[in-house]
Amino acid sequence: MTFSIFIPEDATRTAPPPPVLYYLAGLTCTDENGRTKAAIYEEAAKYGLAVVFPDTSARGCNIEGEDESYDFGSGAGFYLNATTDKWSKNYNMYDYITKELPDFLDAHFSVDSSKTAISGHSMGGHGALTLHLKNPGKYQSVSAFAPICNPTQCPWGEKAFTGYLGSVDAGKAYDACELMKTYDGPIVPILVDQGTSDNFLHNQLKPENLRVACGDKGYPLQLRMQTGYDHSYYFIASFMKDHIQFHACNLQL
Amino acid sequence: MTFSIFIPEDATRTAPPPPVLYYLAGLTCTDENGRTKAAIYEEAAKYGLAVVFPDTSARGCNIEGEDESYDFGSGAGFYLNATTDKWSKNYNMYDYITKELPDFLDAHFSVDSSKTAISGHSMGGHGALTLHLKNPGKYQSVSAFAPICNPTQCPWGEKAFTGYLGSVDAGKAYDACELMKTYDGPIVPILVDQGTSDNFLHNQLKPENLRVACGDKGYPLQLRMQTGYDHSYYFIASFMKDHIQFHACNLQL
Repeated sequence: MTFSIFIPEDATRTAPPPPVLYYLAGLTCTDENGRTKAAIYEEAAKYGLAVVFPDTSARGCNIEGEDESYDFGSGAGFYLNATTDKWSKNYNMYDYITKELPDFLDAHFSVDSSKTAISGHSMGGHGALTLHLKNPGKYQSVSAFAPICNPTQCPWGEKAFTGYLGSVDAGKAYDACELMKTYDGPIVPILVDQGTSDNFLHNQLKPENLRVACGDKGYPLQLRMQTGYDHSYYFIASFMKDHIQFHACNLQL
Repeated sequence: MTFSIFIPEDATRTAPPPPVLYYLAGLTCTDENGRTKAAIYEEAAKYGLAVVFPDTSARGCNIEGEDESYDFGSGAGFYLNATTDKWSKNYNMYDYITKELPDFLDAHFSVDSSKTAISGHSMGGHGALTLHLKNPGKYQSVSAFAPICNPTQCPWGEKAFTGYLGSVDAGKAYDACELMKTYDGPIVPILVDQGTSDNFLHNQLKPENLRVACGDKGYPLQLRMQTGYDHSYYFIASFMKDHIQFHACNLQL
């Protein structure tokens, strides 16, 4: 597995080690997209925050059909542990992001893995929300750009859950709106930005469903609809500074 | 010819139209590199500056060998007008950047082409410096990231000038250090950033030669050696904010 990491300069000289922000990318992406286009470094350096950019799936597993779709297989791991025979050996991004990668970081980098925030874009926003909701308190701050909010109710999620888990219904275990219903952990702040001109807004992303799920639960959600913005990294770069400040505040940096 | 343009939001609503910063990219690049990786928008929007990202050469001209080298032909126009038979029809980036593209912008965008700044990276830094020195007063502000400062004295320039102009000596007309000797136009501020860990520093870029040429002429040059930075867009993104502020100040924004 490939990932990229940004270590703020001061962290190489002074204690304590920096907390970690995980940035989870979306469909078709690798560790490169956020690393090169998210305009994240100035603000991360200012607050002394390390940033980790994981890849979005296993690669080169020689599974039949793994490279045939932009929204399934390579580049589309959906941050879950697959259970179907075909995918369960290699497609375990949930374990990778929540266990294997943190262990690797602890072993090889001077970072403070007890202070952790998570963010992501689109499929990666789904990842950020669900990894938080499935691991209460593991992340002290959560944000997302144009996340897939209710994947059991959209084509991307239906395809992924059917293929990796055997059914859409099994995907409820990885659906932020479903997980919110039964969440009983600490109230960790969540910031979501969503562009109003995003082509995927209504048929794939459905932030209104997350708003309702959070409202029903009484869970505070800061959902900002950003007029005129699309699904691109120009959108992400435009609001990344706000997200870093949000995470820095929640991490008490 | 492909180019990208950033128009600050306010410019779509209020007079006067924004001034233009040209960002010239380096070898192997297209209009995409600066557009996606230079972290330029926040500061450009703040000052109301339009930014134009031209491509780095003609493309697809069906000239024998045009795609064989990373440092000659496609992606390597060197911001000159070629004179050799093989290249002179298509490889005229000098005319394109100084005349054709400004005329096109005037015709199709609401920008103020009387207020113009220029910047660039590596080969594009060479472009920014030489287009200024060959057109005194055309640009009111000039900056460069790791520019090729003295191309008649380095392998990249020797190859380009020999191929496009027939000899290295002919390249003196496109060499910032040579042009500085005879420059007699207005003293336009020049800011240059150069990473000390840039692999091309000593054999290709040679900022010390520009420092000497400016010193001999009494032309003020702000040359900042940035410790530990390399030749990448991470370097550019790290100091782009300073460059935009520099241009905004010189353009009286």
